[in-house]
Amino acid sequence: MRLHLLSLSLLLAPSLALAAPKNIIYMIGDGMGPTYLSAYRYYQDDSSTKVVESTIFDELWQGMASTYPDDDTYVTDSAAGATALATGEKSYNGAISVNRQHIPIGSMMQLAKRLGKANGIVASSQINHATPASFLAHNKSRSNYDDIANMYVDYKINGRPVADVMLGGGIKYFQRKDRDLVSEFKQLGFQYTDSWQQLDTLTQLPALALLAETALPAALNSSQNAQLATLTTKALQLLTPAEKGFVLMVEGSQIDWCGHDNDIACAMAEMDDFAKAIAVAKAYVDQHPDTLLIITADHETGGMTLGAAGEYLWLPKVVQKVKATGRSIATQLKQAESDTAALVLWADLTSITLTEEEQAALLAARQQDEKTLRVLSNQLVAKYSYTGWTTGGHTATDVAVLAYGKWRDDFSGFQDNTQIAKKLIQFIQQTK
Amino acid sequence: MRLHLLSLSLLLAPSLALAAPKNIIYMIGDGMGPTYLSAYRYYQDDSSTKVVESTIFDELWQGMASTYPDDDTYVTDSAAGATALATGEKSYNGAISVNRQHIPIGSMMQLAKRLGKANGIVASSQINHATPASFLAHNKSRSNYDDIANMYVDYKINGRPVADVMLGGGIKYFQRKDRDLVSEFKQLGFQYTDSWQQLDTLTQLPALALLAETALPAALNSSQNAQLATLTTKALQLLTPAEKGFVLMVEGSQIDWCGHDNDIACAMAEMDDFAKAIAVAKAYVDQHPDTLLIITADHETGGMTLGAAGEYLWLPKVVQKVKATGRSIATQLKQAESDTAALVLWADLTSITLTEEEQAALLAARQQDEKTLRVLSNQLVAKYSYTGWTTGGHTATDVAVLAYGKWRDDFSGFQDNTQIAKKLIQFIQQTK
Ligand SMILES: [Zn+2]
Ligand SMILES: [Zn+2]
Repeated sequence: MRLHLLSLSLLLAPSLALAAPKNIIYMIGDGMGPTYLSAYRYYQDDSSTKVVESTIFDELWQGMASTYPDDDTYVTDSAAGATALATGEKSYNGAISVNRQHIPIGSMMQLAKRLGKANGIVASSQINHATPASFLAHNKSRSNYDDIANMYVDYKINGRPVADVMLGGGIKYFQRKDRDLVSEFKQLGFQYTDSWQQLDTLTQLPALALLAETALPAALNSSQNAQLATLTTKALQLLTPAEKGFVLMVEGSQIDWCGHDNDIACAMAEMDDFAKAIAVAKAYVDQHPDTLLIITADHETGGMTLGAAGEYLWLPKVVQKVKATGRSIATQLKQAESDTAALVLWADLTSITLTEEEQAALLAARQQDEKTLRVLSNQLVAKYSYTGWTTGGHTATDVAVLAYGKWRDDFSGFQDNTQIAKKLIQFIQQTK
Repeated sequence: MRLHLLSLSLLLAPSLALAAPKNIIYMIGDGMGPTYLSAYRYYQDDSSTKVVESTIFDELWQGMASTYPDDDTYVTDSAAGATALATGEKSYNGAISVNRQHIPIGSMMQLAKRLGKANGIVASSQINHATPASFLAHNKSRSNYDDIANMYVDYKINGRPVADVMLGGGIKYFQRKDRDLVSEFKQLGFQYTDSWQQLDTLTQLPALALLAETALPAALNSSQNAQLATLTTKALQLLTPAEKGFVLMVEGSQIDWCGHDNDIACAMAEMDDFAKAIAVAKAYVDQHPDTLLIITADHETGGMTLGAAGEYLWLPKVVQKVKATGRSIATQLKQAESDTAALVLWADLTSITLTEEEQAALLAARQQDEKTLRVLSNQLVAKYSYTGWTTGGHTATDVAVLAYGKWRDDFSGFQDNTQIAKKLIQFIQQTK
């Protein structure tokens, strides 16, 4: 039996309204346009069966969100997108939770901290990149990385930093010559590690792990399996004892970067890494039903489409066989000892058989810079997989909104990205 | 107060389940990928206000659907897509409601007819085009237009054709030298007209209007305002008295054709025409709450994206000013008396100021065939509006599912396109 809201709403007393969730897990796939979700389904498909298997994204799909900024364009950047998702207010591209007059806009994590909740940040980028920054700091420009990192320590609510656990990359910004923020965090009682092997040494809040100079390795190149899932598990373990609950933001940061590179193999590996983190969060909700899981994207990146050149084809099999990102392929080809070695390496890394003309183009690109080689490599993978890309930037298409937990229907249908944040802020305001 | 299904389901007796809808209005935007809905919102936006106004699509958005066919590809054509949407079964690209063994698969309209319901077809293409054909006929190939048209008369259930009202284009296929199907329909009691001015002469079922040799004019070029809304109004008026209710399929057929041409101005005008027809259907549901309105697409066409060339821009203002489809612009430029006249005409039809280089390219294309000129014209509009396109064919991205009426929540979340049809067939099976 399916239930119908329109008919039921007449029958129900207001007292049946749910209490707000104690915990919120907010996952943001940076650049994850709706086509990335379709692509991941076919990328994951067991083609030996007739039915295409559903993904965890399919299972949780609730609605769609518009992403336009408060700017002279309909296309947002990650800073304005994250500002909307963290504060419920739109701003200009580049803004880190400030409005057009550069006045700070309070974020949901700042509110949560004020009300006694714990906050967590997990990102596959540096933890002071635009998306996490919009939850923790304020700056007129996303590129003021040092200032933003400083604010992670300096901005205190009830005498404490806004975030209680931060796991991701960014040593470069937190251990600088002019200021050692890691030491400062330690003085504030934070447990700290810079090693995957030592993650276990983080046993309680507050805690900080900076696992790379800037971003973590791309999922496709990483020796670390399920990076984001590992960090999400750790963050949840640390946050669970928080008496008044928590807000955890987990960003699949590099989906966007693959999109900017028009690198489909990179993008699918990041989607897989993100999907595994979602699975961790979903299982957590099953065990902690006072938790809401909400997942969205800040915008679409690259103008990715699943079809090109008039052919009614998209070939994930080609994508599945690519073993490294275009960036890594370019570096490796550039370093190859000879043209012959470079061609052998290409075949090994991509399993794509090039025409003679394409081989010649690849070898010619090897004489130029890595960017030229990377662009060509990604173009070849796109061509053979029939993946379309229209830009190295972002696009204005709506993004998916997924949710899990008792409150999931609050996020169904079409909404603006600010409405997602506003609902979450309403929940946080009910903290007891 | 928002209601929550998970908590409510425990409180409700099965007797509260809704009876099936008496009437179903099933609207299919051919080629209408999710980005078309985003694009239409910004195309419609009053840019003098800060907030972007929601569209009727936004208001009705319920879920998403996958579209892959039962074929050696994840990218469907309109025939396989419509077969899935009409029968609940997937088939190969090109199939009109037959399976891979060419065995007919029963459609929901055939079932509806058997159970005493009335059926209607409205399309802006010829009415025997792939999408309507999959509701009324069976053929191993969508391109057998004459055979399909014949079947509209020949395939009888309870002694009557499957459709009771058909409004659209296709005189060429229904008044042929070898067979005059219009006369045959008249002999079966159908009222008939081939004129918009005479639509009023259709006063009761059964009825047929063929308003063009093949397809209706493109919405952007048409002198007829709100073509699809006009025909939808007429079909609903004729179907309303049907004692056991009706199934009406309304296709925005040419959204797809604009997509194939990579013509954004054409696409937005077709979206607008389709939106106006949706408004008619939505108002009908308000007045007839025993009616379900369901809207989806068979697939995405063109790989349209809202951003190009690395710029964080999509400029609907450029699109809004284009007064004709690329096809019409090409024809008109080709017929211009001189190069000077052609450039004046271009400026008048598009309001786009070309560089000298682009002007020269346009004049050179004028010396070639209309297709070359059309392609260039559409490329220029795409360039100046920052619209991306990746193919002249279809793509595999998921499509939106919209619904209105008491049963709308039955279509929320992610689903396969066959599940939409299966739910509608379940409803039709409950005809009393
Ligand atoms: Zn980006
Ligand atoms: Zn098509």
